[in-house]
Amino acid sequence: MKRIAVLGSTGSLGTQTLEVARAFPSHIRIMGLAAGWNRELLERQIEEHHPGLVAFAGNGLATGDFQRLTATEIASHPEVDLVVVVTSGRAGLLPTLSALKAGKAVALANKEVLVIAGNIVMAQARDCNTTVIPVDSEHSALWQCLQGENTADVARLVLTASGGPFRGLSLTELAAVDAARALTHPTWNMGPKVTVDSATLMNKGMEVIEAHHLFGLPYTNISVMVHPQSIVHSLVEFVDGSIKAQISAPDMRLPIQYALSYPHRWAGPGWGRLRLEEAVHLTFEPPDDARFPCLRLAVHAGRAGGTTPAVLSASDEVAVALFLESRLGFNDIPKLIEAVLSRHSPTSDPTLEQILEADTWARQIAEEEASR
Amino acid sequence: MKRIAVLGSTGSLGTQTLEVARAFPSHIRIMGLAAGWNRELLERQIEEHHPGLVAFAGNGLATGDFQRLTATEIASHPEVDLVVVVTSGRAGLLPTLSALKAGKAVALANKEVLVIAGNIVMAQARDCNTTVIPVDSEHSALWQCLQGENTADVARLVLTASGGPFRGLSLTELAAVDAARALTHPTWNMGPKVTVDSATLMNKGMEVIEAHHLFGLPYTNISVMVHPQSIVHSLVEFVDGSIKAQISAPDMRLPIQYALSYPHRWAGPGWGRLRLEEAVHLTFEPPDDARFPCLRLAVHAGRAGGTTPAVLSASDEVAVALFLESRLGFNDIPKLIEAVLSRHSPTSDPTLEQILEADTWARQIAEEEASR
Repeated sequence: MKRIAVLGSTGSLGTQTLEVARAFPSHIRIMGLAAGWNRELLERQIEEHHPGLVAFAGNGLATGDFQRLTATEIASHPEVDLVVVVTSGRAGLLPTLSALKAGKAVALANKEVLVIAGNIVMAQARDCNTTVIPVDSEHSALWQCLQGENTADVARLVLTASGGPFRGLSLTELAAVDAARALTHPTWNMGPKVTVDSATLMNKGMEVIEAHHLFGLPYTNISVMVHPQSIVHSLVEFVDGSIKAQISAPDMRLPIQYALSYPHRWAGPGWGRLRLEEAVHLTFEPPDDARFPCLRLAVHAGRAGGTTPAVLSASDEVAVALFLESRLGFNDIPKLIEAVLSRHSPTSDPTLEQILEADTWARQIAEEEASR
Repeated sequence: MKRIAVLGSTGSLGTQTLEVARAFPSHIRIMGLAAGWNRELLERQIEEHHPGLVAFAGNGLATGDFQRLTATEIASHPEVDLVVVVTSGRAGLLPTLSALKAGKAVALANKEVLVIAGNIVMAQARDCNTTVIPVDSEHSALWQCLQGENTADVARLVLTASGGPFRGLSLTELAAVDAARALTHPTWNMGPKVTVDSATLMNKGMEVIEAHHLFGLPYTNISVMVHPQSIVHSLVEFVDGSIKAQISAPDMRLPIQYALSYPHRWAGPGWGRLRLEEAVHLTFEPPDDARFPCLRLAVHAGRAGGTTPAVLSASDEVAVALFLESRLGFNDIPKLIEAVLSRHSPTSDPTLEQILEADTWARQIAEEEASR
């Protein structure tokens, strides 16, 4: 029986994590739930899963048969074995570090945690002899393909990208894209921020940074390939030329389940099961840097390291918010990010404080640049 | 440094094994070579690789700076670590058992060994705590995908088949196929027997039997999918719905290299390396049992077990030889095999002697049936 805490339980990945937990009552016990503002949903989750530990950032949560703690306290609680971090933004960072420090495995779906503080997080995991298990479909795919293999034998990691809803559009057509259109993602059902990041390929760029930290490989050994069918979730090419791929229908409950079952696999409802007989057409193509400069920006920020990825992430958050409010054009998202990056004087080997400062600075500068 | 013996060194897979050895002089030392009849090529191989142990079934081999032994003696020689069995037909059986009995790992590319005596061979490997490493591209793919995984977590093994050169032909068109046409295989460059077996899908049926023995899974959990591009070499579907695939350009030197390097991987010439950017189109479809009954025959023989697979293999050998001599039509190959199988009274849990007797019996009956 694995005792888990879900941080960000009321979000899309949080509810899917609880759905997986519901399917495996003999394997999983929900010990803790943490949520930001959706009180109503959190109360329903408490009623169903009876967690002993609850964190809620908002007001008005009725008392009950649980202990009220902060997310960071839940993350390091002795009765928790695995902490599932499915929060978004920098809110996931401190609880992740707290969990790792307490020697707990962390199933991580929060992009920012590794993008802005990958070195610190992975060092913490190493020092405390514990594991960061990826939940993202791409990183879960790489993680699965690397089981039983030696990282030294990897020639490159190939992250697949659906290419987003605008894969085929020209630069001129992209300029006319508005928020409503960007939010129609062809394959996955995600929140608005991730959906826009997926349309600009910033999402994929951040995944490159995450992969760099998770698997300890240099950026030259990580590439991205557009695979519109979203069935091959990523590939690993080894030094001998052999390639391994992980394949399934696009359903986040499968990588979530794997993160919970790891290092085992559980027979279950078969989310993501693919009828191979019907998966008749798979294609791969290199991404178009010219039309989607966010990918290049992200990889450059990753290579620069230090506080630069934090600045990338924060300015992207501002840029996407402005785009969703129709205050910024689609092609202006990378321009705004690039403008902020060009004004940043990076700090190498930053402390957590320096990273969070750079984040705050970048948000201010992004607002400033946007209102020029 | 791995000290290897190559049994069947002058065949197509044998010469490719030596090519791989040549590329990795710091990893591989050729200790033994065994060949059947191609004296000239064997002498050139001796000159290049200086094996200390040589077996030759034919006459006239010049003496040299090596010890002359039988293949079975070489297979169990104390100075050999890994025995590569790339012979064809039942000649590989006794050396394989001899190598396993001596506790040596065996890299196996000989179909018949596992098809006719899989239970005995795998029991020998288990008893002597050693490993049978598959060399076949399909089984190597499965083997690679299963690294770091638990066989109990496998839902099914999916062997891919190019579908052979006659994938699209009707039964009537198949009836008119002659040997010359059957020998034009679209992707792999193989010997005539394997090429015809590949055209009838008997080859794939035998691979199902091999997979059953190698991975210890029941026949219900092994399927075949036609994948004409021959780039996905096989797939493993796990109980949670996740699928892993091994992918590379069709080049036997890659699975040979993996069998030699296992459990490591060696950076090298990159045989089989695929430019993923160009591998744009992959398809899968179920095989057509009606037009290719050999696949069904083989799986039935595998399920029946005992001496039945030996009868299948021997009668197929006769049928293919008759087809190559234009004494049998393409669609008569499965008919002949089925006729022999229907006359066989199988022995369950047979000894090696009983298996070889069944083999001899089947050859006689096949000749008899063919001349009716």
